[in-house]
Amino acid sequence: MNKQAKYSRKQGLPPGSLVHTGIAYESDIHIQLITYNQEDYSITETNDINKIIPILKPDQVNWIKITGLHDINQIDDLGKHFGLHPLMLEDILNTHHLPKTEDYENHIFLTLKELSLTTKDNIIDKRQISFVLGNTYLISFEEQKSNIFQPIIERIQTKKGKLRVMQNDYLFYALTDIIIDNYLKIVDDMDDDMELIEQELLEKKSKLILKKILHKRKQQLSLKKSVVPLLDEIRKFHHSESNLINPKTYIYFQDLIDHLQQINQNLESFREMISNLTELYLANNDVQMNDVMKRLTVVSTIFIPLTFIVGLYGMNFRNIPELEWQNGYYITWGIMITITIVMIIYLKRRKWF
Amino acid sequence: MNKQAKYSRKQGLPPGSLVHTGIAYESDIHIQLITYNQEDYSITETNDINKIIPILKPDQVNWIKITGLHDINQIDDLGKHFGLHPLMLEDILNTHHLPKTEDYENHIFLTLKELSLTTKDNIIDKRQISFVLGNTYLISFEEQKSNIFQPIIERIQTKKGKLRVMQNDYLFYALTDIIIDNYLKIVDDMDDDMELIEQELLEKKSKLILKKILHKRKQQLSLKKSVVPLLDEIRKFHHSESNLINPKTYIYFQDLIDHLQQINQNLESFREMISNLTELYLANNDVQMNDVMKRLTVVSTIFIPLTFIVGLYGMNFRNIPELEWQNGYYITWGIMITITIVMIIYLKRRKWF
Amino acid sequence: MNKQAKYSRKQGLPPGSLVHTGIAYESDIHIQLITYNQEDYSITETNDINKIIPILKPDQVNWIKITGLHDINQIDDLGKHFGLHPLMLEDILNTHHLPKTEDYENHIFLTLKELSLTTKDNIIDKRQISFVLGNTYLISFEEQKSNIFQPIIERIQTKKGKLRVMQNDYLFYALTDIIIDNYLKIVDDMDDDMELIEQELLEKKSKLILKKILHKRKQQLSLKKSVVPLLDEIRKFHHSESNLINPKTYIYFQDLIDHLQQINQNLESFREMISNLTELYLANNDVQMNDVMKRLTVVSTIFIPLTFIVGLYGMNFRNIPELEWQNGYYITWGIMITITIVMIIYLKRRKWF
Amino acid sequence: MNKQAKYSRKQGLPPGSLVHTGIAYESDIHIQLITYNQEDYSITETNDINKIIPILKPDQVNWIKITGLHDINQIDDLGKHFGLHPLMLEDILNTHHLPKTEDYENHIFLTLKELSLTTKDNIIDKRQISFVLGNTYLISFEEQKSNIFQPIIERIQTKKGKLRVMQNDYLFYALTDIIIDNYLKIVDDMDDDMELIEQELLEKKSKLILKKILHKRKQQLSLKKSVVPLLDEIRKFHHSESNLINPKTYIYFQDLIDHLQQINQNLESFREMISNLTELYLANNDVQMNDVMKRLTVVSTIFIPLTFIVGLYGMNFRNIPELEWQNGYYITWGIMITITIVMIIYLKRRKWF
Amino acid sequence: MNKQAKYSRKQGLPPGSLVHTGIAYESDIHIQLITYNQEDYSITETNDINKIIPILKPDQVNWIKITGLHDINQIDDLGKHFGLHPLMLEDILNTHHLPKTEDYENHIFLTLKELSLTTKDNIIDKRQISFVLGNTYLISFEEQKSNIFQPIIERIQTKKGKLRVMQNDYLFYALTDIIIDNYLKIVDDMDDDMELIEQELLEKKSKLILKKILHKRKQQLSLKKSVVPLLDEIRKFHHSESNLINPKTYIYFQDLIDHLQQINQNLESFREMISNLTELYLANNDVQMNDVMKRLTVVSTIFIPLTFIVGLYGMNFRNIPELEWQNGYYITWGIMITITIVMIIYLKRRKWF
Repeated sequence: MNKQAKYSRKQGLPPGSLVHTGIAYESDIHIQLITYNQEDYSITETNDINKIIPILKPDQVNWIKITGLHDINQIDDLGKHFGLHPLMLEDILNTHHLPKTEDYENHIFLTLKELSLTTKDNIIDKRQISFVLGNTYLISFEEQKSNIFQPIIERIQTKKGKLRVMQNDYLFYALTDIIIDNYLKIVDDMDDDMELIEQELLEKKSKLILKKILHKRKQQLSLKKSVVPLLDEIRKFHHSESNLINPKTYIYFQDLIDHLQQINQNLESFREMISNLTELYLANNDVQMNDVMKRLTVVSTIFIPLTFIVGLYGMNFRNIPELEWQNGYYITWGIMITITIVMIIYLKRRKWF
Repeated sequence: MNKQAKYSRKQGLPPGSLVHTGIAYESDIHIQLITYNQEDYSITETNDINKIIPILKPDQVNWIKITGLHDINQIDDLGKHFGLHPLMLEDILNTHHLPKTEDYENHIFLTLKELSLTTKDNIIDKRQISFVLGNTYLISFEEQKSNIFQPIIERIQTKKGKLRVMQNDYLFYALTDIIIDNYLKIVDDMDDDMELIEQELLEKKSKLILKKILHKRKQQLSLKKSVVPLLDEIRKFHHSESNLINPKTYIYFQDLIDHLQQINQNLESFREMISNLTELYLANNDVQMNDVMKRLTVVSTIFIPLTFIVGLYGMNFRNIPELEWQNGYYITWGIMITITIVMIIYLKRRKWF
Repeated sequence: MNKQAKYSRKQGLPPGSLVHTGIAYESDIHIQLITYNQEDYSITETNDINKIIPILKPDQVNWIKITGLHDINQIDDLGKHFGLHPLMLEDILNTHHLPKTEDYENHIFLTLKELSLTTKDNIIDKRQISFVLGNTYLISFEEQKSNIFQPIIERIQTKKGKLRVMQNDYLFYALTDIIIDNYLKIVDDMDDDMELIEQELLEKKSKLILKKILHKRKQQLSLKKSVVPLLDEIRKFHHSESNLINPKTYIYFQDLIDHLQQINQNLESFREMISNLTELYLANNDVQMNDVMKRLTVVSTIFIPLTFIVGLYGMNFRNIPELEWQNGYYITWGIMITITIVMIIYLKRRKWF
Repeated sequence: MNKQAKYSRKQGLPPGSLVHTGIAYESDIHIQLITYNQEDYSITETNDINKIIPILKPDQVNWIKITGLHDINQIDDLGKHFGLHPLMLEDILNTHHLPKTEDYENHIFLTLKELSLTTKDNIIDKRQISFVLGNTYLISFEEQKSNIFQPIIERIQTKKGKLRVMQNDYLFYALTDIIIDNYLKIVDDMDDDMELIEQELLEKKSKLILKKILHKRKQQLSLKKSVVPLLDEIRKFHHSESNLINPKTYIYFQDLIDHLQQINQNLESFREMISNLTELYLANNDVQMNDVMKRLTVVSTIFIPLTFIVGLYGMNFRNIPELEWQNGYYITWGIMITITIVMIIYLKRRKWF
Repeated sequence: MNKQAKYSRKQGLPPGSLVHTGIAYESDIHIQLITYNQEDYSITETNDINKIIPILKPDQVNWIKITGLHDINQIDDLGKHFGLHPLMLEDILNTHHLPKTEDYENHIFLTLKELSLTTKDNIIDKRQISFVLGNTYLISFEEQKSNIFQPIIERIQTKKGKLRVMQNDYLFYALTDIIIDNYLKIVDDMDDDMELIEQELLEKKSKLILKKILHKRKQQLSLKKSVVPLLDEIRKFHHSESNLINPKTYIYFQDLIDHLQQINQNLESFREMISNLTELYLANNDVQMNDVMKRLTVVSTIFIPLTFIVGLYGMNFRNIPELEWQNGYYITWGIMITITIVMIIYLKRRKWF
């Protein structure tokens, strides 16, 4: 799939046709079924969705964790078994989709982005994660292998926290929460970077400051694109009061909204700080230019008249009486020194240097 | 029709007077009637609307595909047969109309723009397409010949996808969807172009960058003018819950809204990126100017005093004792080299070069 | 009335005091009564409002067309006869009032601006027009003589269009429509002008471009001031569903709203294009400045060292060995040419010219 | 009370503590009681609020006009008599309060600013005026002596207008109206000033233009701070439909809202015009800089090579063959004139002067 | 806890895990229990929350004032005794939380920031304060020791104001009010600073003005981050009409909203003034640059031709007839003076100096 088709479906395909739009990573589909209740816990790994379906436990929480979205047939089978709408499957596979929730009758759909900073060039890397929450199951679709849900699996295994005593709606919250916590971490990093840039700017250290500022802007835009629609969608979801969510779990989603609002506000501050820093940079540049020009003007204003004078007595006219004076040379020096002193006093008073 | 009257009706004409405001292309009116249900399928081509009306099949989907809007009499006849409001016909013929939906009692009206990038100079080309959805028919009005609906016709012929099992409301969705998919393609292209421009800007390659940025701005404005009102109108339409649309089809229109929102968000990002690039360009220019001025100042600051000195000893005073010294010339060189070195050290320390 | 009091009432006057705030044109009050139904049509011209009142025909459409707002007594008489509120009369006479509708029990009030471009200096000229729509009459108040309603009168006379078969609410629509169509014409003109300015800017032809851009801005602001509140007011009026407007006429007002929205969107685009053009202009200026400075720096960087060298050998020291060399002059030329070539290569590589 | 505490209450004081925050003018409290109905009219002046209370006439309009807010005890007594809430009294005395209305059960509270331009330096002067409207009384609190209500008192005395036939709600309207009319006057003045500044800018007359623009901005901000919340508050009040206001009086408050909207729109235009003028100023400056630099570059580009040439033949090498030529001097002149002409043609073509 | 984790929870911890995110100050937990009604008053200090619980007086107001948030176990005990939700405790301990209210069934939660200006470098210091209002108790959590509530404690002790006769809801208001009053004080200070900066800017005194402006911007952003969400939250709280707040106390919270609105409006003005000042600064810089360049150009334009002339007659051609003239030198002087005078008149006319 070439780059051209980042957002657009290949023309001519009927809507609801399943096409995976992400970059094809080497990893194949990988499925984990994690079932648990307060007493029991089991984990099954496989590459075949059809092996999972018979062993679902209707009286426990069933978390079907799917990694890799390339085996369209298997995802189609899954969709058919759980009665998922073709458009929803299309959204799961379109890895450039905006964050979105949709409340179907029997299940809730949420797609959002997992964000991480690449270690090499500090770019925000996006991986799409989608959830389908049904009455006894939760399916998570990850575009690509990642360890983000590892702490949750450990908490399930070790019975730490409330996970084992709660239902799949709480698991849904916990997974979303861990993703959004990651956003906060990125915001923290950006905050530190911004202070560094400001520091460098005030100390006029770096030459690359403009590139760094542009980089921060792109990070900010990129984050905003993931956060703002997610906030809207989770708010919408919170108001919808689906009966798949236990009323006691709703307050946890309010907490997610709080976090997203905080991220959003930080992003707004970043936007303002970035534009402040750009302005400061340009102003500094202007001030520096002013200094350069003043220096040039000072040097020119002082030496140009002097050069004229020495040129004057370099003329070869037959009759230049001053040239014949015994002290002509010393008088000329006197005049030139006087001019220089007057100039310097004048320029000093006008605060030119 | 001259350019003056791009948006305005010729004054003095009563409202509802049919006047076609687009550019007159050579193509005449061209009508296709495509009727189908799960079993049957037929296609009829003609230039006379009155030949179509008797052969409509009330128990099938009737798609009347009209290309070319110049034969006002025929469009008037059509309007009278289907009971279309004169103002609606005026909107169909006014090819500069904003995207709009209107819910009449017996039919729904939608007008929007088909967009395509011209191959030559990458300008966004707009062609107006209008739809009238009745209970058993769908009329499409195209300003000009285009192949955009060809894939749909093929899907009807080949029974691919759901088209043949669904009603005319789904056909209406499918046609709108294919137009909006095209928008996404343009957004993809713009995205690539933006990255290219940024690349060029950072590498300071291109001289025409400012023109390119202005071009992108105009593209962005042009797209926004087509997308923003369309999003509003399709939202309004989605809320209106007309009974001409099957409740099961509504979710597809939600999908259109998602796509348009995504386009809209991308356009917003473009706007910010464009203004970032302009700022970066101007800042780069300022920085470069600063460099130029510094260089000039460095050269002047070093050479102007030296030139003064050599002028000094070019004077023709009878009595300049230094001139008589045996090593005067070498001493002068010594002084000049000293001045130069001191200057260079001073300027280096102040980070002038 | 001096300029000071453009918007403010002369202080101390009780509210509802009738004072005309427009410029006093030579024209006196001029009244036309146009009555018509499907069969009959008559037109009466007079200068005395009291001659009109007895000849109103309650079973026909009565259009009282008043031009000139200076005869306050007559307008007061008219107000008393039709039971118009003093504050409404005050609004009619205050020719700097914002567009506004007000739904009184027995009549609807609308005041708006007729706009035209002056031929001389392309300025937007505003003339206030107010309407009072009662159950059998429509009163129009024009600040000043104009031919804008002539086409309507002709359509009434010639029975062209629907006017003669419709009621006074349709006449009200038709008159408003012709005013708003004029706005579209001005927007068309501005659109052309904007493209011209852009053209001139890219070709760097005009020196007056900045003045032209400022002029467009003022036009845009002026139009916006007339259009935005009018759009709001006509929307409000459309939602109010007064029983003075036939439900079948309402759709025509929806059409007015469409036009105003289109104008509004165009004005928004203009605003963005104007700010783009200003930026482009400033950027062009910066680029040009950069070029000027580079040229100066190139010339200076090359010649200042050469001038130093020739000054050097213009010194009159007794003992300058180079001066005595047979080929000193040619060697100096060689050095100078070498320096020049090295400089040019260096500057070329750094892309200075 | 020092400047520090402009907005903040002295810390530690319980809320509702009465502290006057305005500047202490010399004037003491001054109370006028104006009572009237259609037949009677009386005015009483005093410095003691307790003398007023017994002579209130419950069957007439009682306007208690208080000037000066320093005698906190008297205002406390008044509050107790009319049952005013301590927080309302605090708002009356805090002369930096934003415009605000509050609908208590038995009375309505409105506080707003009287604005006037100082004659000396054209600064907007603010004086707080508060109103309490009860069923038979209206209390006005003025921070400071002013003649603004004089015309109203005269209209009451002379029975001009409707005041004497209306109740205290109409008096409340009339007083508010006269304050807002004053705003319009200031907007008129600003409008004229803006045109003057634009004129000066285009004619490049004034050196102080930047200071003038900043001054206008501060005026605009200052006005906006008084107008925007007042508009919101009067709208809120208009919607609240208190039974202290006669339904027939409500239309007059709609008129106030119209005026405030008009002011608000003018302020928006001012904001845009001010930023346009700043941009124009900076652009003019850039253009002028460009001209200066071009001139310098032209002079330098022409003379620097010539100066090099004359320096060349000022060298004292023993063997410079050109110096021995009979026509060397004339040939040099020829070369120099040629260079100059070529330069001028070249620069002319590139439109440098 | 390192800086990285400013906003984000340590990954892997279950939500609702109590972790204190603030900087660890030396101070340990410090608890004061203040109980009072109209007759009685007592204050108890301790470090152990479990000593407080048995001595609560259900018929009095119980204010549990907790300073220091590091003893997580004690806060957990407190939460269990009063039935506080784990997420609320998490919010109390996360000292970077945005202002927020939450209406639980049996208690109301409010967290906000106490702001103060550091004396050293005028930075806005934030300390989080949270309140939990139950039916007979109010718990306040302070991140760090401060004297801000001292005046309230004194008013309780001295029976000044209404505190002793009111319930815990009024205490809640009084504490919030004292915090917000502090905001007003900071806004006052900023206002004064802004005027100082403007003064300095117009008098071109300071070199550090750009840094000062940036500092004000950061103050403004910082304040806004505390004020805007607080305003939203207190409005939400005001609309919720919890039955833990006496209806008569609600009007006091309206007063808080007024104050916050006033602060908010001032912050908006600050934002505009700051951007005005930056623009003014840059414009001043441009104007100054213009002046510098003009001076340089004037000096160069006058002296460069003169230097050419004196160089001309410094040439050593054998045959330069002017050199042989008796008055050649004087004629040259004459020419040079003439050129200078003409230049000066020309430049004066073009207003160059």
